[in-house]
Amino acid sequence: MADTGRLAAFSDAVFAIVITLLVLELRVPDFHEGELAGSILEETPAFFAFVVSFVYIGVLWLNHHAVLRLVRGTTLGLNWINLGILFGVVVIPFPTAVLASALDDGNADDLRVAVVMYSVAAALMSAPWLLFFAYLRRHPTVLGSHVGRDEVRRQEARPITGLVLYGLTGLLGWIVNPMLGLAGIVVMIIYHGLTSEGVRAGLFRGGRGGRRG
Amino acid sequence: MADTGRLAAFSDAVFAIVITLLVLELRVPDFHEGELAGSILEETPAFFAFVVSFVYIGVLWLNHHAVLRLVRGTTLGLNWINLGILFGVVVIPFPTAVLASALDDGNADDLRVAVVMYSVAAALMSAPWLLFFAYLRRHPTVLGSHVGRDEVRRQEARPITGLVLYGLTGLLGWIVNPMLGLAGIVVMIIYHGLTSEGVRAGLFRGGRGGRRG
Amino acid sequence: MADTGRLAAFSDAVFAIVITLLVLELRVPDFHEGELAGSILEETPAFFAFVVSFVYIGVLWLNHHAVLRLVRGTTLGLNWINLGILFGVVVIPFPTAVLASALDDGNADDLRVAVVMYSVAAALMSAPWLLFFAYLRRHPTVLGSHVGRDEVRRQEARPITGLVLYGLTGLLGWIVNPMLGLAGIVVMIIYHGLTSEGVRAGLFRGGRGGRRG
Amino acid sequence: MADTGRLAAFSDAVFAIVITLLVLELRVPDFHEGELAGSILEETPAFFAFVVSFVYIGVLWLNHHAVLRLVRGTTLGLNWINLGILFGVVVIPFPTAVLASALDDGNADDLRVAVVMYSVAAALMSAPWLLFFAYLRRHPTVLGSHVGRDEVRRQEARPITGLVLYGLTGLLGWIVNPMLGLAGIVVMIIYHGLTSEGVRAGLFRGGRGGRRG
Repeated sequence: MADTGRLAAFSDAVFAIVITLLVLELRVPDFHEGELAGSILEETPAFFAFVVSFVYIGVLWLNHHAVLRLVRGTTLGLNWINLGILFGVVVIPFPTAVLASALDDGNADDLRVAVVMYSVAAALMSAPWLLFFAYLRRHPTVLGSHVGRDEVRRQEARPITGLVLYGLTGLLGWIVNPMLGLAGIVVMIIYHGLTSEGVRAGLFRGGRGGRRG
Repeated sequence: MADTGRLAAFSDAVFAIVITLLVLELRVPDFHEGELAGSILEETPAFFAFVVSFVYIGVLWLNHHAVLRLVRGTTLGLNWINLGILFGVVVIPFPTAVLASALDDGNADDLRVAVVMYSVAAALMSAPWLLFFAYLRRHPTVLGSHVGRDEVRRQEARPITGLVLYGLTGLLGWIVNPMLGLAGIVVMIIYHGLTSEGVRAGLFRGGRGGRRG
Repeated sequence: MADTGRLAAFSDAVFAIVITLLVLELRVPDFHEGELAGSILEETPAFFAFVVSFVYIGVLWLNHHAVLRLVRGTTLGLNWINLGILFGVVVIPFPTAVLASALDDGNADDLRVAVVMYSVAAALMSAPWLLFFAYLRRHPTVLGSHVGRDEVRRQEARPITGLVLYGLTGLLGWIVNPMLGLAGIVVMIIYHGLTSEGVRAGLFRGGRGGRRG
Repeated sequence: MADTGRLAAFSDAVFAIVITLLVLELRVPDFHEGELAGSILEETPAFFAFVVSFVYIGVLWLNHHAVLRLVRGTTLGLNWINLGILFGVVVIPFPTAVLASALDDGNADDLRVAVVMYSVAAALMSAPWLLFFAYLRRHPTVLGSHVGRDEVRRQEARPITGLVLYGLTGLLGWIVNPMLGLAGIVVMIIYHGLTSEGVRAGLFRGGRGGRRG
């Protein structure tokens, strides 16, 4: 078993790059002299998509941070599962850009496609997190000595919720109304952020017993 | 409470990426054979915007570095506030690019818009730093044992100064003259750099008592 | 001899950036209102090239992670060899983009060129890894005290296999059929991933005796 | 005085990003079906510029790595000087891209401009390194206890050599022949790489007494 140092450093760098790349989608539009302000206002949808995805990646980092504190080391298996998690993270800028394009240039059909695509990407991203917890259950020696089964279970509920609810959000966006689906995505991201240390450990309860982060 | 290791690593990577992405705005212009030198000179405004923002991000990193030394660990609340700080950092390349565009292709109105936009982005960036210090005041257990209330207060004065003065700078640029506003931005950035370890701890007084950086 | 800390951190960041840059090749296509879905489907080849290269870079990171655990410190010589390894990593997005272009816009000849190019890049990437092991053999003082000659040899077999088999894959793609060559590349990447801790240490045998990662 | 941990992590990330961004200049050219190979060959000058700059950034990292081992901590002053060093690093992709453009599309005049620009950027980059050593001389308390004055002086000779010789290289490229200037740049980069632990500590002498890297 190896220390999680490099796993964390590699993952941190990936999260950092993805969260920063999003801003590259915000391009200065071509403008006629004296019309810069108007051109920038047209970037509003892209800015909205940027903010949503920034918060989303931030929340994923919070979750990754919390989950890696459960283990006392890493194995080849966990490294592979982590690559799966990072795959989900790295993909995000693409549906984000699609969403920005659809908000900007598309009609209701295009927006529907974009919302479903975002939801599906988010739902699929739950899969490697499920694998992560399944691995912990089958390899309890990987768990830190201070980590109770309760804590693992508390975390495990969340990717399942994610898989189901992002799926429903996609359906909502497809069948009922794409803007409703978009609202569902935003709600889900906030939910995951507030619960990143487990469903019942709230944001304002403060930290639990100390360990390296 | 978790160690600040990953928080620092993630933040360092974000700062590093943003400071480097700025140079991507410096594009080699198309040129006719034998006219490369002239084409490059036309990039001067973009280069100026690049230098200003490089120094700005550098100064923000210095501040982040100094501020994180005040705490002995991190919590979910501090992680969220840190995401707010990083949001401000990640956004910078956009007003930078707008500023470069305005200097390059715009008239006085466009430049006014760009200067105000840069000032507003800089002023808003003070908000999460204020939250950071408010959090420290309400959760003194997070403070390092070597950190006095004085030191926290010394740092706290600075985001308030930033909020007010960047706001005034924007007004100056809007009402009086965009170039004056631009000069104000540059002055503010240098001020924040020289005082990054607190208003009274000068650049050339040397370091204070040692701790992990 | 210096600690491997900065060598690992620098390398981790390079791997992280390359694995993330790949997604930049996935661009939102221009589309007519209501035809976003169709336009995105045309990105499938680029998405395929992205997935292959993501897994490839991930596997290279796993290998780098495993190999750096063999040494107890680094020297100027090892730092240079590591730069060679990183050169191979940094180059990958280019043959990936060529492959995506060929799958998208090219005919069989173009695809042949792209497959050969990818294979040659992958085969040449084995060279610095061979240098790495040759260096370890000539400077046994660099090895960690817990590392047996067996473990070094087990790892050493792999870049040789890579050099030969990626070469053969390229030939296969050139002479027989580019799609066969592409399949060969995918098989090779998976092989390297499953054996990243040595040919005989399987993915599911769990970790070996602990050390810093 | 703060630990150099975050200074090193931030710098490592900047080096890693710059060394990776260079490859973004390698774009897949547009091509007619069946002519991919020919189009790629036209990228040869860009590839040459990429390789030169990759090695250059790599060498700068080796130097940064060696120099940071001289100090036992960092101060606000050193942090500022380090930002100066990173500024030099971050700028490199721009003269690299100019060089690639000049090799690709320019005539002898354009190439002369590009070579001079690269030389000037490289010569100016020596300035913050000189400041670094001047700071060490004036603040000997920052030096690690194991570091002799000899070691500092051995390192200090090198930025001076750089300033003078890159300057001469630029003159050579301007007055005599741009290709000669280009050759001079390559020679200088290799010289700095081989001597990155001081002029007399050769590449193959192995490491010196251990310390964290």
